[in-house]
Amino acid sequence: MDNLKLIVAYDGTDYFGFQEQRGTGKPTVQEALEKAVSRLAKEKVAVIGSGRTDSGVHAWGQVVNFRLEHWPVPLEKTPIALNTLLPPDIVIREVQKVPENFHARFSAHRKTYRYRIYNARIPNPFWMRYSYFVPQILNWPEMQKAADFLLGEHDFAAFRSLGTPVKSTVRRLDRLQVKKQENFIDLDICGNGFLYNMVRIIAGTLLNVGLGRLASSALPEILSRKQRSLAGTTLPPQGLCLMSVEY
Amino acid sequence: MDNLKLIVAYDGTDYFGFQEQRGTGKPTVQEALEKAVSRLAKEKVAVIGSGRTDSGVHAWGQVVNFRLEHWPVPLEKTPIALNTLLPPDIVIREVQKVPENFHARFSAHRKTYRYRIYNARIPNPFWMRYSYFVPQILNWPEMQKAADFLLGEHDFAAFRSLGTPVKSTVRRLDRLQVKKQENFIDLDICGNGFLYNMVRIIAGTLLNVGLGRLASSALPEILSRKQRSLAGTTLPPQGLCLMSVEY
Repeated sequence: MDNLKLIVAYDGTDYFGFQEQRGTGKPTVQEALEKAVSRLAKEKVAVIGSGRTDSGVHAWGQVVNFRLEHWPVPLEKTPIALNTLLPPDIVIREVQKVPENFHARFSAHRKTYRYRIYNARIPNPFWMRYSYFVPQILNWPEMQKAADFLLGEHDFAAFRSLGTPVKSTVRRLDRLQVKKQENFIDLDICGNGFLYNMVRIIAGTLLNVGLGRLASSALPEILSRKQRSLAGTTLPPQGLCLMSVEY
Repeated sequence: MDNLKLIVAYDGTDYFGFQEQRGTGKPTVQEALEKAVSRLAKEKVAVIGSGRTDSGVHAWGQVVNFRLEHWPVPLEKTPIALNTLLPPDIVIREVQKVPENFHARFSAHRKTYRYRIYNARIPNPFWMRYSYFVPQILNWPEMQKAADFLLGEHDFAAFRSLGTPVKSTVRRLDRLQVKKQENFIDLDICGNGFLYNMVRIIAGTLLNVGLGRLASSALPEILSRKQRSLAGTTLPPQGLCLMSVEY
């Protein structure tokens, strides 16, 4: 039995997210991967992702795995062989063989996301697909202060959209950095798990702080009151990118 | 009489070039600009560009101007007013009033283009639209040596595609730098004028040098023999960007 782990980058703009969804005409990343893998394997292969990414969300380091009796392509040639079959907006960056019990979703320990804000007076057409444009001046040190309140283990019930029911809304954030470089303000968030839309709602809340509409000191109360309405809006998908998954 | 000069950035992917062309369904950048300007002016206004960019070619610093009796919007509010009417892949970066005799095409002294190669073993989906992917290792110092032969005034007949007839194929290049930074190899080219496809053919020729298929010392002969077939192929449009126009 072969079990292969792939690191996958994609421009999510033209996909209805990672995972197959019924009733939509739009393709998904998972479908595209299964098609390419199955073609090389000459049999139908199911691809398991580390998790969903929503419609329009990007990935630099999505991780997937698939199992089959025997993978016929030499490992070092597999990325190029798959990339040749994949559309140009999905790229296999790395491939390795992993133990049979490795599962891209269940074995994941931590994920890192980046929410990228393009912060300048005038938008940049080359970053429209890969960032969220904010023309106002942002107080990013204050955003970092607010972010610090979210570090550690908390009930993030205020920071999720309703979706698939979950057993617990407690998650642990190990890193939440607000980085300003040139015209970008990047929110780098690393944690052991994320609720539906959690990163985009955290980003929307920190944006309110940066705009001076919310005090950084309000974050503990938003956490403790667990009301979605106290947090910021869900920022749009094009600013979000799944950077890496740790196992 | 008002004469306004605009600096315009655009993602050329979805446009059939800058200038209106007959018989195509695809929109052009010029059309989009004229529509937005005319709407604010409440009259039909013609927009003059510094020159054409081809289908799929980008611009960071395209310059256009338009004349009309009276421009009704305060200058400092004009970029945002126009950007609100324009699609997100076209952005007005700057606006200024210029003397009545300023003409974006005829007054231009020099232009700077960048041809961007993404040079890594594995492609990057976020740069597919804005660069040309080359997986082989490139000898970029040798590319710079070849580029140096093109500096100054030469007959660039070997480096053009047949298009609109021109009086002379002599042009002057003031700068041709091959810059390696991270996974990019950028060819920055500044000159007093460019023949049809000239930058993309120069890029294709320098690429051949980088790949070891052509000696840098062959460049003087390619220039002097003036045969298109001796130069490299025309590289694809998505790597090309008009960076700035000098007046």
